[in-house]
Amino acid sequence: MDRRKFLRGAAVAGTGASLLAAPAIAQERKSLVIVSTWPRDFPGLGLSAQRLAQRIGEISNGHFAVEYFAAGERVGAFDVFDEVASGNSQAYIGAEYYWGGKHPAYNYFTSVPFGMSTQEWTAWVQYGGGQELWDELAGGFGLKAITCGSTGTQAGGWFNKEMETPDDFKGLKMRIPGLGGQVLTKMGASTVSLPGGQIYENLVSGAIEATEWVGPYNDYFMKFYEAAKFYYTGGVHEPGGGLGFAMNATWYSTLTDWEKAVLVAACNEEHNASHSEAMAKNGEYLAKLINEQGVQVRAFSDEIWDAFGDGATQVFEEVRAHSPLAAKVDDHFQKALRQIGGTINALEGTFLKQRNRVLGIG
Amino acid sequence: MDRRKFLRGAAVAGTGASLLAAPAIAQERKSLVIVSTWPRDFPGLGLSAQRLAQRIGEISNGHFAVEYFAAGERVGAFDVFDEVASGNSQAYIGAEYYWGGKHPAYNYFTSVPFGMSTQEWTAWVQYGGGQELWDELAGGFGLKAITCGSTGTQAGGWFNKEMETPDDFKGLKMRIPGLGGQVLTKMGASTVSLPGGQIYENLVSGAIEATEWVGPYNDYFMKFYEAAKFYYTGGVHEPGGGLGFAMNATWYSTLTDWEKAVLVAACNEEHNASHSEAMAKNGEYLAKLINEQGVQVRAFSDEIWDAFGDGATQVFEEVRAHSPLAAKVDDHFQKALRQIGGTINALEGTFLKQRNRVLGIG
Repeated sequence: MDRRKFLRGAAVAGTGASLLAAPAIAQERKSLVIVSTWPRDFPGLGLSAQRLAQRIGEISNGHFAVEYFAAGERVGAFDVFDEVASGNSQAYIGAEYYWGGKHPAYNYFTSVPFGMSTQEWTAWVQYGGGQELWDELAGGFGLKAITCGSTGTQAGGWFNKEMETPDDFKGLKMRIPGLGGQVLTKMGASTVSLPGGQIYENLVSGAIEATEWVGPYNDYFMKFYEAAKFYYTGGVHEPGGGLGFAMNATWYSTLTDWEKAVLVAACNEEHNASHSEAMAKNGEYLAKLINEQGVQVRAFSDEIWDAFGDGATQVFEEVRAHSPLAAKVDDHFQKALRQIGGTINALEGTFLKQRNRVLGIG
Repeated sequence: MDRRKFLRGAAVAGTGASLLAAPAIAQERKSLVIVSTWPRDFPGLGLSAQRLAQRIGEISNGHFAVEYFAAGERVGAFDVFDEVASGNSQAYIGAEYYWGGKHPAYNYFTSVPFGMSTQEWTAWVQYGGGQELWDELAGGFGLKAITCGSTGTQAGGWFNKEMETPDDFKGLKMRIPGLGGQVLTKMGASTVSLPGGQIYENLVSGAIEATEWVGPYNDYFMKFYEAAKFYYTGGVHEPGGGLGFAMNATWYSTLTDWEKAVLVAACNEEHNASHSEAMAKNGEYLAKLINEQGVQVRAFSDEIWDAFGDGATQVFEEVRAHSPLAAKVDDHFQKALRQIGGTINALEGTFLKQRNRVLGIG
């Protein structure tokens, strides 16, 4: 029964006793503990997660009593999965590819090399069958995950020298995690995965020679330009995709339709908000990087992209060999990428190519 | 005071009398009449608006008593502006460029020739200063409008012959409204603006030789392929942008923070949903058009795009000459387009160009 109808009915027909009982049940607040993979107040990612937490309270008119814990405040960044799967907390926010070690299919629910842009990925997940595969994957761990944020296509990274041929990657010590890192490993690079807070010191000390992070807005605050002046545009490793809000599946199943509607709407709103914010601010911060910090912007050559392609082919063979579910997700993803991505290319891609040519942009 | 705290307090401390009074006020439903520019059950646009109307009820737990009227059910499609500005209804959903005759700056809050893609436009409106200009414009008419839907880059249109040079547009009778139509008029075309329901009959009878509508998903149901076999990809006239949900400003100002949060979240969710749905379905329906209906897909030549550019330059000079507000909006829009669009091109554009080349997409 709709709780508002219930209350309204009680107000008209009720006795003192029923009125005293009803609101205490119907109006009870629902506790929602969110643990995050992002540091407190981290520009872009962290602020997006905190905005979501606040917004769930606003949209539910205070019904959800949300407690938000940044990375390390309740559990460590990479412990949020077990924290929520166990039911200790109700939800985490983060990048699903962090769980690639638990199952490689998790990579597809953030971003994979040669994968989808944010709008392609969102269309695939929400209207192209991706959510059903995500449910199958996350359901196996007792979780229910939905789209909740994106920073768009990641920059190719920061290098202390120009990268002109695939050979320049041989022996390169670079911070680049996940499947993107594996692609570079196939090309002879020596890749490491460092948390955000440790990248700068390793780059300045020379322990690593290159790193990728997010894009101009997020990267600006990391000051990588102090040790690496060459900034490469769109990279192969994380072309878009998005972040996830994952709830304990048992807890989610006990929610009312209204409670589910509030959470899904809040995550959909934040998915759009974080992407739009990044797109708006990337422009402003790329200009700052160039004009204030003397950053040199470069694009990888066709030859390097062809080598990325060879490396990615090997990486995806390994992913597919993991399990039938990994192969099923890859099949579905690759087909959707070509159908959705091919049509966006025919429409938006055709327009943007011509607009940018005629107006002299880019 | 938070209405839930109020009720909860009453339940603990109240007498029968105060309890009878409180819920009747606090739980009163809020009437919200939405009038639409789209026909009932219209694929894409109409279904999106209807989904929004239902979703406002769901997210508010039934607090908003939403009545949705499709075009013609309460007022005609083009009468919704006056209906809501007058306060007769609370909100309309539609394309703001329908009001270009009231003020040409309205075009920028849907889509203009050589304008922004959906993700560029959303970033501009929500995080790049566009909303403030929209508020200034709509506020002058007693309205408060926010983003609520997008169908992405529109196809160039349906033609009964191949369009090879700018001269092929001379004397062409085409259905294409708004500033896009004006660009083609500068090239010598004879453009008309017909409502959706009248296009097919005019195309079949030969009264018009060409038409644009939306994109593959929406266009499929219009059966234009029966009279025009050449379908042009990304056009100049409506590169993206989005639709609007506009409320009577006085009514909006009386809403509680919670009520505003629900409406804004619902519109943001639908903004993302309609775009994702169109992106997912465009791929499927473009394949149907080609494989089932023998549609021939073409792209306009560089020479034609250069002529579009010359036409657009003249059109924008006329728009800017209208008023200081029109010039101010154009200045802001054009600067944001270059900063946001240029950076998306450097990141996502670079990636997509290389991905599509390496994977053979497009």
